[in-house]
Amino acid sequence: MENLQESLRKFAAAREWQPFHTPKNLAMALSVETAELTEIFQWMEGEESRRVDDSTRKHIAEEVGDVMIYLTMLADKFDLNPLHCAREKMLLNAVKYPAPKP
Amino acid sequence: MENLQESLRKFAAAREWQPFHTPKNLAMALSVETAELTEIFQWMEGEESRRVDDSTRKHIAEEVGDVMIYLTMLADKFDLNPLHCAREKMLLNAVKYPAPKP
Amino acid sequence: MENLQESLRKFAAAREWQPFHTPKNLAMALSVETAELTEIFQWMEGEESRRVDDSTRKHIAEEVGDVMIYLTMLADKFDLNPLHCAREKMLLNAVKYPAPKP
Amino acid sequence: MENLQESLRKFAAAREWQPFHTPKNLAMALSVETAELTEIFQWMEGEESRRVDDSTRKHIAEEVGDVMIYLTMLADKFDLNPLHCAREKMLLNAVKYPAPKP
Repeated sequence: MENLQESLRKFAAAREWQPFHTPKNLAMALSVETAELTEIFQWMEGEESRRVDDSTRKHIAEEVGDVMIYLTMLADKFDLNPLHCAREKMLLNAVKYPAPKP
Repeated sequence: MENLQESLRKFAAAREWQPFHTPKNLAMALSVETAELTEIFQWMEGEESRRVDDSTRKHIAEEVGDVMIYLTMLADKFDLNPLHCAREKMLLNAVKYPAPKP
Repeated sequence: MENLQESLRKFAAAREWQPFHTPKNLAMALSVETAELTEIFQWMEGEESRRVDDSTRKHIAEEVGDVMIYLTMLADKFDLNPLHCAREKMLLNAVKYPAPKP
Repeated sequence: MENLQESLRKFAAAREWQPFHTPKNLAMALSVETAELTEIFQWMEGEESRRVDDSTRKHIAEEVGDVMIYLTMLADKFDLNPLHCAREKMLLNAVKYPAPKP
C-alpha cells in the first residue's frame, strides 16, 4: 500500500499534476470513477450482476483500479492509508451492527 | 489486503448479509459512501481543502474507510484485489499519459 | 420553471450564498443529493423498489426536491432551463435510439 | 412538466424499456448522469467554472437534459412532479435556514 502511494506521488509529480490534485478535486474525480463502475451494473438484475462474462470482468477490474487510485491519492493528502482506515471502520461497524449470538 | 477481504467476508457472513451483497447493490453502496466523502469538501475552495482541522481529518478517515470497505467487497465478488487493479491501471495510464521528457 | 429559478435566486441572495454557489460547487452538491436518493433504493430488489410505503414515498419526494433545486440552480448559472434541456436531449435520443417500426 | 412526463412515458414504451425502468435502476442511471455533469467541472477552479466557452456550455446543456430526463422518469414512478417537489422542499428549507433579518 505504501508502495502504491509512493508510485502515485511520483506519477503525479512527473506530470506536474499536483496543483490540480487538491483534495476537493480528487474527491470529485473519485465520484466520477465510482459512477463508471456503477454504470456497468445499472440495467442488470441483482443476481445477473453476480455472473458477468470475461470482457465485463476486465472492464470492472479497470474501473476498480481507477477508484482505488483516486481513493489512495486522496487519502495520501491527509497521510491516511485506506487499508488502515477500513480496519478502523470495521471495528466501529462491529459495535454498530453486532453479529447475532449463535 | 487478502486479510481485509477475508475479514469482510466473515463479517458479512456472520450477519447473513450475503443475499443483499450483489455486485449491483455493492456498487450502489459504494457510490453512496463516495458521496459522503464528497460532501465534506463541497463548499470548500480547492486550497482550503488541503488544510483541514483534526475533527474533519477524522471524519475523512472514516469515510475513506467506508469507501475502501465497499470497494474491497465489490472487487472480492470477482476475485479481484483493488491494489493489483490499481497497479495494472497505472501501467495503462503511463502509456495513455506519458511523462514529459526531461 | 422560470418561477422556480427566480425564487431560488432570491433564496440564495437573501442568505448571501452566491459566493459559494459556483457551478463547480453546485455540481458537487447535486451529486451528493443524488446519492441520498440512491441510498433509499440501495438494498431493494428492482421490483420491490416499485412498491414503497407512504413514508418512503414522502422521503423520495423530499430528495427529488433537493436534486431538482440543485439542478435548477446549476442550470441557471448558464441561463439554461432544465425542461428545455430535457426536450432538446429527447430529440437527440430519438435519433440515437430509433423506435422499432410497428 | 406533465407534458415532458407524458412524452418520456411514450418514449420508453415505444422501445419496451419499462421492465428495465425500475425506480432502483432509474436512481442508478440518475447518479451516472450526474457524474457526467460533475466530470465537466472536476479540474476547474471555482471561479473558472463560472466562465465556460460555448462548446462547454453546449455540453453542460446536454448533461443537464439527461439528469432532468432520469429525474423526471424516476419521480413519475411515484406520481411525483419534480417542480412541485422542489417547491415543497424550498418551504422546508426556508424554515431550516431562515434568512437573516435586515
